[in-house]
Amino acid sequence: SLIKECTQDLSTSHELPPMEKKWIIDMLEYNVKGGKMNRGLMVVQSGEVIIRSQGREPSEDDLKKLAVLGWCIEWLQAWLLVADDFMDSSQTRRGQLCWYKKEGVEEIAINDAFLIEMLVYRVLKRHFWTEPYYVDLLDLFMETTFQTECGQLLDLQCKNIGLEDFTYKRWELIVKYKTAFYSFYLPVALGMAVAGIKNQSAYDAAREPLLVMGVYFQAQDDYLDAFAPPETLGKIGTDIQDKKCGWLFVQAYHDLCTPEQKAFLDEHYGKCKVQTEEEKKIKAIYEEIGLQKKYEDYEQKSFQDIMAYQSQVVEAGLPWEIIEIFLKKVYKRSK
Amino acid sequence: SLIKECTQDLSTSHELPPMEKKWIIDMLEYNVKGGKMNRGLMVVQSGEVIIRSQGREPSEDDLKKLAVLGWCIEWLQAWLLVADDFMDSSQTRRGQLCWYKKEGVEEIAINDAFLIEMLVYRVLKRHFWTEPYYVDLLDLFMETTFQTECGQLLDLQCKNIGLEDFTYKRWELIVKYKTAFYSFYLPVALGMAVAGIKNQSAYDAAREPLLVMGVYFQAQDDYLDAFAPPETLGKIGTDIQDKKCGWLFVQAYHDLCTPEQKAFLDEHYGKCKVQTEEEKKIKAIYEEIGLQKKYEDYEQKSFQDIMAYQSQVVEAGLPWEIIEIFLKKVYKRSK
Ligand SMILES: [Mg+2]
Ligand SMILES: [Mg+2]
Ligand SMILES: [Mg+2]
Ligand SMILES: [Mg+2]
Ligand SMILES: [Mg+2]
Ligand SMILES: [Mg+2]
Repeated sequence: SLIKECTQDLSTSHELPPMEKKWIIDMLEYNVKGGKMNRGLMVVQSGEVIIRSQGREPSEDDLKKLAVLGWCIEWLQAWLLVADDFMDSSQTRRGQLCWYKKEGVEEIAINDAFLIEMLVYRVLKRHFWTEPYYVDLLDLFMETTFQTECGQLLDLQCKNIGLEDFTYKRWELIVKYKTAFYSFYLPVALGMAVAGIKNQSAYDAAREPLLVMGVYFQAQDDYLDAFAPPETLGKIGTDIQDKKCGWLFVQAYHDLCTPEQKAFLDEHYGKCKVQTEEEKKIKAIYEEIGLQKKYEDYEQKSFQDIMAYQSQVVEAGLPWEIIEIFLKKVYKRSK
Repeated sequence: SLIKECTQDLSTSHELPPMEKKWIIDMLEYNVKGGKMNRGLMVVQSGEVIIRSQGREPSEDDLKKLAVLGWCIEWLQAWLLVADDFMDSSQTRRGQLCWYKKEGVEEIAINDAFLIEMLVYRVLKRHFWTEPYYVDLLDLFMETTFQTECGQLLDLQCKNIGLEDFTYKRWELIVKYKTAFYSFYLPVALGMAVAGIKNQSAYDAAREPLLVMGVYFQAQDDYLDAFAPPETLGKIGTDIQDKKCGWLFVQAYHDLCTPEQKAFLDEHYGKCKVQTEEEKKIKAIYEEIGLQKKYEDYEQKSFQDIMAYQSQVVEAGLPWEIIEIFLKKVYKRSK
């Protein structure tokens, strides 16, 4: 496995003692597994679809490369989540305790997040060093990381601004950067790179519908944070407690609430703990004002927006299927 | 300035609102300035010395490139320290409050550390994208980062092991990785890269004495943490409170203490707060057992060890001066 491969020589190359080597292996096992692996599989699927659209069957080597890059996104996501859970003081993730909450881990989780980040680049070096597109891969991972960090900054700054600044526009900006680039654009872009696509305009054409999809995906995530049972979610939703600029809140606060409901949000949003009466009341307000319906309308609208990109994608020489397969998956999740 | 250069286009390229752009600028100003800039200056000086040893005068372009790389190390150090201070729960740094201790920052400091890390790669891309050694620069920064993170892991794991495992060998391993690579080898290696040096053996020859110097440098840092006044140190030394595997402790515990002194260390090391009677007593023990003298002996020995590398460095085609200038600075610091 990749974990073995990228840790086995650390005893000699980096003089790492057995305990620290075991720490890194256990830390990787704990954090890179147990997810739905959507992003990793997207790399493989988009790569396959594009290569077939070029009139050839993916080789063993293509499939190996796509699988490695798929794992690289999963590892990227792993460190993003380790750091995010620490910053958000989250309790659980994927149905287990957050890594930093484990005894003996705590603040070491921060260094662990940085370590996983560098291990991704070590994997890339090992597998792609001699490829002509190696620098492009590095560039893609680094640019996407930076975009995600900009999104995290926008998200984290919400603690320093007032609720009146939690606008729909701000929400959209946050989620585009903190989620859409790494979760939707990056997997497809990596598939394109392995398929040998070089012209920037093809990457641009794919990016637009994928970002719309990614933004919708986060709306779904925000919706589920409030309304999905914790067993389904794999964690306890804390967006209300954490004063998150979520899709539900921005609609409620600026568009749909009565003055009394808005006053209740002003008084309790971001101040009430998870599962208190106040938090439940906020969720009840969300239901009363018809956010369920508004969410369904938004879902349909974003679906149609994506479909409108079909000709642009095809004209860029890409098979529409690379968008369609993920479209089906994402829009099935909530139904 | 570099800060302006790498933030000015974020409003458009990354749709960053004014508040977040200002945050990044302020955050950089706060964390990359105010240091002694030793590492940054080392890049410029080693580059100049090597280029002159090649029989030419450094061009404007050489000097510009060396200065940019110098700042890149300072920025690398900035994010390492932002993250380190958070993980160590430190209070002050360079005579001011640690970044994460500022009101409104707290956990955002973690994302800020990741942001600075990526900004370094954006600076490298902007200035070196077309250079034949661009990938080598990326590789050098990434490998050094990984080494430093391994060192941090070794350091942080000290909270999970017993004092009997705080050996001199472990101390040496920790500091070689967490300090010596990025503080001593990286600056010289960057100077060599700009000077056009390509053969790996020259880098290997330079690395050995520089790592010895870096290890001594950290011994000095550990020594000063206990014995330098906070005004000189720019922060309050917390190594005893933090149960650090420091140069003073490993000597004391395993070699120099009486059973009674050792028992006192067992009882209070890593458990007493800064400036309590117990912490002062531990420092008094360090003095009683003659650690001052032992430190001076170690200083002299490491100095001689470095001098013994002279022929090896010269045979690799490098001017001995690149070692000597830093040797003089580092060994002057404590006198
Ligand atoms: Mg979170
Ligand atoms: Mg978060
Ligand atoms: Mg969520
Ligand atoms: Mg520290
Ligand atoms: Mg530390
Ligand atoms: Mg220190």
